[in-house]
Amino acid sequence: MSKTVKVFACASVGNMSVGFDVLGCALNEPGDIVEMTFTEGSEVRIVEITGDDGKLPKELMKNTAGIAVAKMLKHLNIEPGIDIKLHKQMPIGSGLGSSAASAAAAVYALNKLLSEPLTPIELVKFAMEGEKFASGAAHADNVAPAILGGIILIRKYEPLDVISLPVPQNLHITVVHPDLVISTKEARSILPDSFERIDYIKQSAALASFVQALHTNDFNLLSESVVDHLAEPYRKSLINGFDAAKQAALNAGALSFGISGSGPSVFSFSSSLETAQQVGQAISDSFAHLNINSEIYAGKINQNGPKLIVE
Amino acid sequence: MSKTVKVFACASVGNMSVGFDVLGCALNEPGDIVEMTFTEGSEVRIVEITGDDGKLPKELMKNTAGIAVAKMLKHLNIEPGIDIKLHKQMPIGSGLGSSAASAAAAVYALNKLLSEPLTPIELVKFAMEGEKFASGAAHADNVAPAILGGIILIRKYEPLDVISLPVPQNLHITVVHPDLVISTKEARSILPDSFERIDYIKQSAALASFVQALHTNDFNLLSESVVDHLAEPYRKSLINGFDAAKQAALNAGALSFGISGSGPSVFSFSSSLETAQQVGQAISDSFAHLNINSEIYAGKINQNGPKLIVE
Repeated sequence: MSKTVKVFACASVGNMSVGFDVLGCALNEPGDIVEMTFTEGSEVRIVEITGDDGKLPKELMKNTAGIAVAKMLKHLNIEPGIDIKLHKQMPIGSGLGSSAASAAAAVYALNKLLSEPLTPIELVKFAMEGEKFASGAAHADNVAPAILGGIILIRKYEPLDVISLPVPQNLHITVVHPDLVISTKEARSILPDSFERIDYIKQSAALASFVQALHTNDFNLLSESVVDHLAEPYRKSLINGFDAAKQAALNAGALSFGISGSGPSVFSFSSSLETAQQVGQAISDSFAHLNINSEIYAGKINQNGPKLIVE
Repeated sequence: MSKTVKVFACASVGNMSVGFDVLGCALNEPGDIVEMTFTEGSEVRIVEITGDDGKLPKELMKNTAGIAVAKMLKHLNIEPGIDIKLHKQMPIGSGLGSSAASAAAAVYALNKLLSEPLTPIELVKFAMEGEKFASGAAHADNVAPAILGGIILIRKYEPLDVISLPVPQNLHITVVHPDLVISTKEARSILPDSFERIDYIKQSAALASFVQALHTNDFNLLSESVVDHLAEPYRKSLINGFDAAKQAALNAGALSFGISGSGPSVFSFSSSLETAQQVGQAISDSFAHLNINSEIYAGKINQNGPKLIVE
C-alpha cells in the first residue's frame, strides 16, 4: 500500500460582512497544498511543513490538519500509516481561513486516498475539529466553503447543515491582506456578547436582502446588503487604515467593502474582473500610504472546492 | 365632485416568527372595509365606524385611518371634503394588523378617488403614520403587506425600502385568533433591548434559510426555518395555552407555528388547504380545552393587496 495524493484547498472569506458567523465564500487563490502518502507503517506523521516561516507545529495533535486527519481516521476506525506534507501558500492569521484551508486539504486528500468513504459535508465536520483547535471554537464558515466551494450559509450546527447559495455569474471578489497581525481570539473578544435589538433588525434585514440579491442577480441590492452593523464597528479599530481603504475601494467601483473573517484581510465585491483588480490596487495603495505592505487577490468565487493536483 | 369608493384591505401577519420586525405577509381574510366619498365641503370626517364595539374614536387625528388620510392630503397639498366610513371586520388588538388594515384601506381608497397620484410604496409610508399612532412606532411589517400583498421584507426604513419575496404556489397559511387581550406596547416592552450573540446567529441563519426556501420551493427547509429564538420565548407567556396549541398544530401537519405580530393570534404554514384547515381546527380545539374561544382563518397568502369593491 503506497499511494500519494496532492490536494490544493483554498482560502475563504468568513462572515462576508453581512452574515456574522453564518456566511462564508471560497476563493480561487490563495490556498494550501497537502501531499499525503500511505506508508508501510501504522503511524500518521506530518513529515514536512513549508511556507509557514516555522510557525506551525509538526506534532500531529497540535496541527489543525493533523487533528482533522486523526479525528477522521478514528471515525473510520482504521489505523493506516500516513505521511503528510503541508505546503502553506497563504498567510497565517490573515482572516482568510488559513487553518481551514490546511484542514480542508487534509481531509479531502485522505478521503481521496481512501476512495471517498465520506461525503463532503462529513468532511466539513472533521475539518471543523481542526478549526476548533486553531480558533477555540468549532466554526464552519471557513471550512465549509473551503470544502464545498461557493457561497455557503451555515444553517445550523447540531446537526451541521449548510446551504449552497447561488453565485451570480459576474460576481467577482477582491481580497487584500495587509501586513498586520490580529489574533482571532482578540478579534472575537472585542465583540460584545449581545447586540442591540435595533442593530439586529438592520443586520437581519440586510442578510435576507443579500440572499434575495444572489437569487435575483441584483447587484444594486447586493451592494446595499453587504454591510456589517455588528462586528465591523468594533473590529475595524484593529485594522490600521480601515476607513481610508474602504473609501478607496468604493471610489474604485467596489460594490462593497468589509472585513474578511476576523481580519486583518479585507474584501470587496465587484461586478467585473477589471473592477475587482482596480479595487485591489486602490485598497493596496491606501494601505501603502500608511507604510503597510499588502497582497492582492482578485477573481471569481471558487465554486469547485479542493482540487486534486495531478503531476 | 361627488364620488365614492369602497375598499377592502386585509389583515397581515407581522414578524412571521423568523423575521422579527422585518417580515410580514398578507392574508385573504379577515380585513377591513373603508368607504370614502368626496363631499361638497372642505372637511375630512369619519362619519361612521361599525364592527368596533365602540372601541375606535371617530376623531380624525385619533384614528389610524384618519391620520393616514390627513397626512396624505397634506403631502398632496389638497383640502377636499371627504366622508369616511370604516367597517371593521376583524378583531382589534389581535396581532393581525387591525390598525394597519384600516390605514391601508383608507390610503388605497383615497389614492383611487384621486386617480392614483401615489405609488404603492408611497401609500405604505402614509399608512405607517397611522400605525405610528396605534403602536407607538412607525412599523411597516403590517401596512406594507396589507398594501402590497405577498410576503414582504422590510429592507430598511430611511428611506423606506421593501422587497416582495417569492410566494411558493402551494403555501397556505392558518391564522387563529384566540379571545385573549394583549397590548402591543406590553408585548413590545416584555422584550429585552438586546439579544444574545448566539441567539442572533441562530435567528439570522434561519431568516436567510427562509428566503432560500421561498426561492427554491423547499417546504422542508421552510419548516425548519420558521422559528423564533428572539421574541417567542418572551411573548409566549402572554398567550395562555401557547405550547399546547403549538403541539396540536404540528401534530396536525403544520410546517410551522408561531405568534402573529405581537399576538395573541398565532399562525401556521401548511403545504395544502386541507392541512391548513385541519391545523386551524386543531389549534382552535386546543384553545377550547382552556375555555378560550377562537376564530380560524385558513387560505393562501394574499398576493394582490387591497381590493376595490364594486357594487
